[in-house]
This record gives sequence, structure tokens and C-alpha cells, in this order.
Amino acid sequence: MTSSLINRRVVLSSRPKGVPQAEHFTVDEVPVPDLGDGELLVQTLFWSVDPAMRGWANDAPNYLPPVAIGDAMRSFAVGRVVASRNADYAEGELVHGMLGWQRFAVSDGSNIDRKVADSGLSPSLALGVLGLNGVTAYYGLLDVCDPKPGETVVVSTAAGAVGGAVGQIAKIKGARTVGITSSPEKMALCREKFSYDAVISYRDQDVAEALAEAAPDGVNCYFDNTCGPISDAVMTKLALGARICICGTASLTDWDPIPVGPRVHRQLLVARARMQGFLVLDYQDRFGEAIDTLSGWIKDGKLTYEEHTLEGAEAAPGAIDMLYRGQNAGKLLVRVD
Amino acid sequence: MTSSLINRRVVLSSRPKGVPQAEHFTVDEVPVPDLGDGELLVQTLFWSVDPAMRGWANDAPNYLPPVAIGDAMRSFAVGRVVASRNADYAEGELVHGMLGWQRFAVSDGSNIDRKVADSGLSPSLALGVLGLNGVTAYYGLLDVCDPKPGETVVVSTAAGAVGGAVGQIAKIKGARTVGITSSPEKMALCREKFSYDAVISYRDQDVAEALAEAAPDGVNCYFDNTCGPISDAVMTKLALGARICICGTASLTDWDPIPVGPRVHRQLLVARARMQGFLVLDYQDRFGEAIDTLSGWIKDGKLTYEEHTLEGAEAAPGAIDMLYRGQNAGKLLVRVD
Repeated sequence: MTSSLINRRVVLSSRPKGVPQAEHFTVDEVPVPDLGDGELLVQTLFWSVDPAMRGWANDAPNYLPPVAIGDAMRSFAVGRVVASRNADYAEGELVHGMLGWQRFAVSDGSNIDRKVADSGLSPSLALGVLGLNGVTAYYGLLDVCDPKPGETVVVSTAAGAVGGAVGQIAKIKGARTVGITSSPEKMALCREKFSYDAVISYRDQDVAEALAEAAPDGVNCYFDNTCGPISDAVMTKLALGARICICGTASLTDWDPIPVGPRVHRQLLVARARMQGFLVLDYQDRFGEAIDTLSGWIKDGKLTYEEHTLEGAEAAPGAIDMLYRGQNAGKLLVRVD
Repeated sequence: MTSSLINRRVVLSSRPKGVPQAEHFTVDEVPVPDLGDGELLVQTLFWSVDPAMRGWANDAPNYLPPVAIGDAMRSFAVGRVVASRNADYAEGELVHGMLGWQRFAVSDGSNIDRKVADSGLSPSLALGVLGLNGVTAYYGLLDVCDPKPGETVVVSTAAGAVGGAVGQIAKIKGARTVGITSSPEKMALCREKFSYDAVISYRDQDVAEALAEAAPDGVNCYFDNTCGPISDAVMTKLALGARICICGTASLTDWDPIPVGPRVHRQLLVARARMQGFLVLDYQDRFGEAIDTLSGWIKDGKLTYEEHTLEGAEAAPGAIDMLYRGQNAGKLLVRVD
């Protein structure tokens, strides 16, 4: 029955160096094979576009082997089970996994990481605020920073898919929030959509000076996605007992050899502050709990998000480059046609 | 009755620049005044010699005003109450406080920070292993690092008054210990007296290479008193979930401007490690609890210590210089004559 279906795919057709461009992909159509025992067929609804895809497409050492030329591009996706010979999955269920840039994915279950609740919210949220981005914000902020009512929480990449959620969760917990971002558009997004109490542009302002005004009692919590000069400035404004979540180091790409910067030891000592590395994958077992809470906040109107949705497979080849150029506003997705 | 007593003092007689030398002090004798209401008289038994005394003797901005010329040198000391018109203190009690380099101290209680149990152990221990040094080791290690049985604990300044206690407490808690120190004498002290499982000389060995052998499964806990190159080496060997206590930054004396060094962010992120500043004065309310436990370990033969005791007031003037030259082996004290 499934063999009459046509799988439309975006395949890697040549090997990029650096950021994959539209020319490195082609859209093709192949038949969907019959399901074997233990397999299920997922019709994808939304494909994710993530920074990690640059590494997957390149032929460089990575934590996963490079995508083979001629294969559908590796990506996270959300889709609906349309046929199943696997007892763990029933037709009609929504799932999230490494399903690739293809309309139909045959899976033995190993590349599916979770089922997605059919909650009335868009399934696309499983790729963003109800997925890795939202769960990262949730546990990174609440477990590592643990903000208290009235404390000041500073967020770098404040307008991003993670940072936007961090700022809002901090507000839900009663904290004051200060967002650090770049352009006037992103500053407006931080203020109007993500409810930051104060917003700083690291392009147009001296971050340390601006923080002295925006956080006069010092920084109690710092959720950092950047490292580099932004963090160096925030570290000069720590309040006693500050907690710093190191979630990413986006502003420094080359770590071999380790780049130098101001030593943080004395700042940590004087403030008796704590700096801690965070990786969301350590929380695999607790995704459900975070997603339930985040879903509730969205339904209650307490948590909002930005999505930038491209339409159809033809839009996918240029999407990774678009992401690296910062031309997206919100979580970048492809809606499957 | 107290007025017939003679107070022998070591007074600051001229202002040093840098480390105070013997020539900056004189020993004198003055009468002990009568006690006013609320005052008590303490006969000191041991005077402490501490690095902070350099700053107190100099005329430079500090957290305390400089010692006035002609005053007994400011120092911690332990002594016995020999007369009291203060309801909080009874004759015969042992006390610890900022009593100065003088045989008799008249106090209104404000410079006494605690009573010392008359436990059969030498009162001098209140200046070291049963005082700031031991309590620093106790809470810095147990509260910040929280070592688990079988984990590897690395200690810089391993032979010092704090480091020696850290290593032993870690062993009591079932951890493997690696001490980093300098000379062959200090290495022997670490091995033989403080029971370190492995000892590294930062003078004669490449610390990172030596750690690869001494801590093949990585460093779970790092108790750091140095910052600088020793720490930089340890940070390259963190185990997953490592905890780093920043207790001091002895190897870097000038923090204005902040010295640069390898950025720790990526190491903390990859290992999901935690780096935290520690100041023992935050634990004022819990000194008693630590001292009781440490005393028990000493009596049970589980915890040992080194003291370097100078005899009498005439030895005091050269003691601070001796400390800065590293000529002491263990906590440096003056026994009051």
C-alpha cells in the first residue's frame, strides 16, 4: 500500500566546504519502499534548519559521519505516522526525530527520539520552543541559574530561539530580565514579544556601561550563549552569589588552540559566583516534564515564540546559508509541501 | 589587680614598603590598664603569622586601616581569659580573635570571634587546622566540590595549611587524591604526612602530562589556590561533571587590569563542569560544626597537620618575611613567652 507513494527529497548532491549553499542540493522523487517488520512510515510536516547541519554536510571530523552524497539531507523533523509495523508506534501519532529533508521517512524507530502530543498547538513547535530550544532554555535557566523573584537575569543572544524563551521563563519566575542582542529589529522583538525589562545592543552600546544602568544591583543570573567580549563585560557586573549558565560559545568559533581572554577566577571568587556548563542532552529523561510545562505556558499566553517558515522543498537548499547569514527571524523551518 | 601586669608587645615602629622586615618592629613593655565595664583581659598563648599582615602593615588601601606606628602589630591570636568584667566571657576560657602581637590584650569582645574548646588539643590549632585554614578546607571541599568515593580530587598548593587538610579530608571521604606542589621536601610531606595518592611538582614536571598519568579517568574535583598555569593545565583534564573550587589565586598577584589566560568556557561546557568561588567568611555561622568534626578526625588520627612554631616575642619581627620567603614548613606561629 505504501509503495504507491512518492518520496520527495532534498538530497546532498555535492560536497560543500563551509556553509552549504543551494547549489549543493537537488530535489528528487523516489518511490517509498514497502515496510519491513518493525518499521513505520512517517510523513513529515516540518523540517528543521539548524547550525549543526553545516558540519553534517561537510567531510570533516564530527560527532556523526558526514551525510553521503545522494542521501536526503540529515535533519530533525516532525511528522505523522501514516503506517506502522512497529508495536511502539500507531498510525496517526506525531513523532519527532532525525527524519531528514524528505516527505516520507521509513524508520525502525531508532531515529525517532520522542512522540509529540497532539495538543492543538502546531506540530512545528516540536522543532523549537517545544523541542531542543525550549527545553534548553527551561533546564539551563531553572536548573543551573535558578533565578529568584526580584533577581536580575541577563541573557545573551536574547532574541534567539533559546534566548527568547529564557527571558520569558525568567519573567514567569518573577525575575527582572535584561536582553543583549544586536539590531534594532531584534531589540524591538526582545522588548515587545519577549517582554525583556531592558535591552542592550552589543553593536551600538558599551555592554558594561549599559549593564551598570540596566542592572544597578548587579547580575544575579547570566545565561550565556556567546562567550567572548559580551561575556567579558557581563562578568564585570556580577552580584554576590551569581550563577552563570554556559550554554554556548557562539562568538568564538575556533577553540584549537584555546582562545585567551580575561581570567574569570577572581570575579568568581569575589562574588562567590558559580559558572557551569550545560548540555540539554543530559536531560533526555526529563524532556516530557519541560515540554508539558512549556505547552501550558504557551496555552496560557505566558510564553510566546517566533517561527520563520519557508514553504516547500524548493526553499530548503538555500536555508542553511540563510541561517548562517542571520536572515531568519525566529526558529527557521521548512513546511513540507 | 590587672594593673600590676606588664604587657610585652611587638609594635610596628616604622612603615614598611612591601613585606615588613624585622627592622620595622620593636619589642616593648607597657603596663596593662585596669579593665572597664564590659571588658576582659586575655593572656595570649600563640600569635598567628599570615600573608594578610603585609597589607595591614603597609599604608595602602585595604579592607582594614593600616596598623598605626607604635601600636602592637595586628594579628590573629589565641589566648586565655585571665580576668573579665564582660558577662559573655568567664575567666579560664580560651578565645580566638584579632588580639595582636602582645602578651595581654584588653578587649570589649568586639575583636574576639569565637571561643576555643579546651579539648586537650593544643590551643595553637585554633590558628590553623582548627581555624580558618581547616574550615576553609572543610567547606570549600565538601560544600563546593562534594567529592564522592572513588573520585579523583586534585589540590593545588597541596602541602599548604589549607591544601594539606583538603587532601586528607578528601581521603576521609573515599576519594583518590593528587597533590600539586613544588619542592622535593613538600612532595615528601604530601606523600608521607598528608597521604596523597599521587604528587606532582609544578616546578619539575609538565602538570598536564603528569595528570594524564595520575588521573587517567580525569579530574572530578579541583581545589584551586593558584589560578595561572597550574590551573590552566588541570582544566584540560576535567572529567564529566567536574567541580572546581576557586579558593585563591596565589600565582597571580596583580588583577588590575585582569590578566588574560585560556578561556575556560568551552572546557566547562564540554565537561558540564562547575567552577565556583569560595570565601570562608560566608561560613561564620557554621564554624563550630566544622571545627567539631575536624577535632574528632585529629583525635582519631585521621587528620594531621604541620606547625612551624617560633619561640617568643623576639622571633616575631622577622616572621612575616620568613613566611613570604616560604621558609616555614607548616602553619607559622609564635609561641608567646
